[in-house]
Amino acid sequence: MSNNYTSNLHIEKAKTSKINTVDFDNLTFGRTFTDHMFICDFVDGKWQQPKIMPYQAMTMDPSARVFHYGQAVFEGMKAYKDDKGDVFLFRPDQNFKRINKSCARLAMPEFPENYFFEGLTTLVNLDRDWVKPGMGNSLYLRPFAIAIDSAIAAAPSDSYRFMIICSPAKAYYKGTVKVLIAEEFSRSANGGVGFAKAAGNYAAQFYPTSLAQKKGYQQVIWTDADTHTFLEEAGTMNVFFRINDTLITAPISDRILDGVTRKSLIQLAEDNDIPIEVRQIKVSEIVEASKNGTLQEIFGAGTAAVISPIEGFEYKDTYYNLPQIEDHSYSSILKNKMMSIQHNLSEDKNEWRYEVK
Amino acid sequence: MSNNYTSNLHIEKAKTSKINTVDFDNLTFGRTFTDHMFICDFVDGKWQQPKIMPYQAMTMDPSARVFHYGQAVFEGMKAYKDDKGDVFLFRPDQNFKRINKSCARLAMPEFPENYFFEGLTTLVNLDRDWVKPGMGNSLYLRPFAIAIDSAIAAAPSDSYRFMIICSPAKAYYKGTVKVLIAEEFSRSANGGVGFAKAAGNYAAQFYPTSLAQKKGYQQVIWTDADTHTFLEEAGTMNVFFRINDTLITAPISDRILDGVTRKSLIQLAEDNDIPIEVRQIKVSEIVEASKNGTLQEIFGAGTAAVISPIEGFEYKDTYYNLPQIEDHSYSSILKNKMMSIQHNLSEDKNEWRYEVK
Repeated sequence: MSNNYTSNLHIEKAKTSKINTVDFDNLTFGRTFTDHMFICDFVDGKWQQPKIMPYQAMTMDPSARVFHYGQAVFEGMKAYKDDKGDVFLFRPDQNFKRINKSCARLAMPEFPENYFFEGLTTLVNLDRDWVKPGMGNSLYLRPFAIAIDSAIAAAPSDSYRFMIICSPAKAYYKGTVKVLIAEEFSRSANGGVGFAKAAGNYAAQFYPTSLAQKKGYQQVIWTDADTHTFLEEAGTMNVFFRINDTLITAPISDRILDGVTRKSLIQLAEDNDIPIEVRQIKVSEIVEASKNGTLQEIFGAGTAAVISPIEGFEYKDTYYNLPQIEDHSYSSILKNKMMSIQHNLSEDKNEWRYEVK
Repeated sequence: MSNNYTSNLHIEKAKTSKINTVDFDNLTFGRTFTDHMFICDFVDGKWQQPKIMPYQAMTMDPSARVFHYGQAVFEGMKAYKDDKGDVFLFRPDQNFKRINKSCARLAMPEFPENYFFEGLTTLVNLDRDWVKPGMGNSLYLRPFAIAIDSAIAAAPSDSYRFMIICSPAKAYYKGTVKVLIAEEFSRSANGGVGFAKAAGNYAAQFYPTSLAQKKGYQQVIWTDADTHTFLEEAGTMNVFFRINDTLITAPISDRILDGVTRKSLIQLAEDNDIPIEVRQIKVSEIVEASKNGTLQEIFGAGTAAVISPIEGFEYKDTYYNLPQIEDHSYSSILKNKMMSIQHNLSEDKNEWRYEVK
């Protein structure tokens, strides 16, 4: 259905901007929103006129299906500004494809490609003063879709709302994190929705994560639900391991998110002669590697944090500390390369940047 | 925290009733709502004043966490009216306990017991004209809780909303259904949230169910995600099998919902000398029993439909038809016994009825 929709984006600009009320040096992630938002409803079997309007609350019936049956998917993206004031997105085609994969898995209608890109770029352009230059600064973009039908029968909704909201952001995680490897709880099932950015996947992680936090860990590394022997994701990120100078990450599956940062890091590793293996990796392998000194790094990878280095992990009541390798770590090398591309500071041979004009 | 809250329910009655606009003979499940709703917000670490007010839409910020991370749980309950006009709930204590179990698993605050019961009974009393007498008629009650914090960081919300809305209902399913046994998709993982009435569990089922529907089946019987060899739930219901006059249903687990109808049927079977086994049951067992003529019945069990007889199932591209046994079927015996208790037409030796005065 990608291009069957005629573009007729309606724009209602905010009368005044809130930007001067925002302290950009002290942003809490995801609590401040820009002046505008994008909204498009699916009613009577088709997507209606897309609109950009002043960011505002909306009216929802208590019976809206999203509240009851969790038909909700989202994406996380960022816009970056270089020192000339040019604004770039990073591989937005990947987010567009993925949100439609998520929609399909949750029996939600796919969103038209031209609506997505016109809405996204027009919105970022309107709010481009909110994209601050400088490494680590970005405008976090949150496309999402929700079921809005006013009916509590357990069936797919007839009507949906697709929106994009924008929140200025600095780095998501501060410093390194300690993680707990899951032995009891799990994130997703074979044949389930783990590969989708489905809202319910996230709520399901909060309680196990809170238990980990009580033990002094910031995140959980998820393992397969069946045997808890294979390493899959770290918190809400994909996860990479460096053993004997080889970088290893799990293959995507119906349990594992096809992360844009993950696939970009795999490509960057290849481009920079960092040995990379995409294969299943067992907990026992990193435990053994930690014991014999060959486990050098673990890091999470995702849009919000780019790369989040992990300083140690607990497994079966034993804590394993990782060595400090700072400047020559793969995490710092790859993070710098990623961010340089994102901020238009280096060559973009894979053509990942997407300028917002 | 059950009884630490002082009751101070605020009631704002609707100025007029919509009841005369409703065609009670032609109700679509879950699309008509009564005059009032119950609402209570959790803010600043505690539940605020509970309120009953006219049923109405509410204002939500686009960043409300329920839209993004699926922190949402619900219950399904019914109120029944007997011919004298007395109104009864069915085991509401079970729904209360379960919604708090669901809340805990999704890192949401538990709701106070006295708020729940005072809100529920006051609401049903106010809207008791909407509870119509007669077998099969009921007022469907939907308690639910959602994360309302305006923040898109992937973490538990600081604020929540607990609501109860009511929808007049007739029988949920009409007639028997054919089901497809899941071989690829799955409903829940070990260590996941399958036992909770978490919103995301339902959205995850819609797409596989739609595929089954395209093949001519109304529902999916879910199997374990790991091996797809054990029978677990039917659509959004628990599932029972009658083989050689013994009723069999799977034990509850972290994958299987602790259904109120399920546990009541187990008790009713015991009370009525129907042999009942709560144990794991393999797909191969019902296939074999179907082939040798000992598989007599399969039915789903849940609040909405009470009991939903299944006329046949497909497994590995083979369709297995069930015999017709109509009047002496366990499903009709147990459904009649359940509904007679619910509608105050028979003795209630287990004290399941809860009168709304």
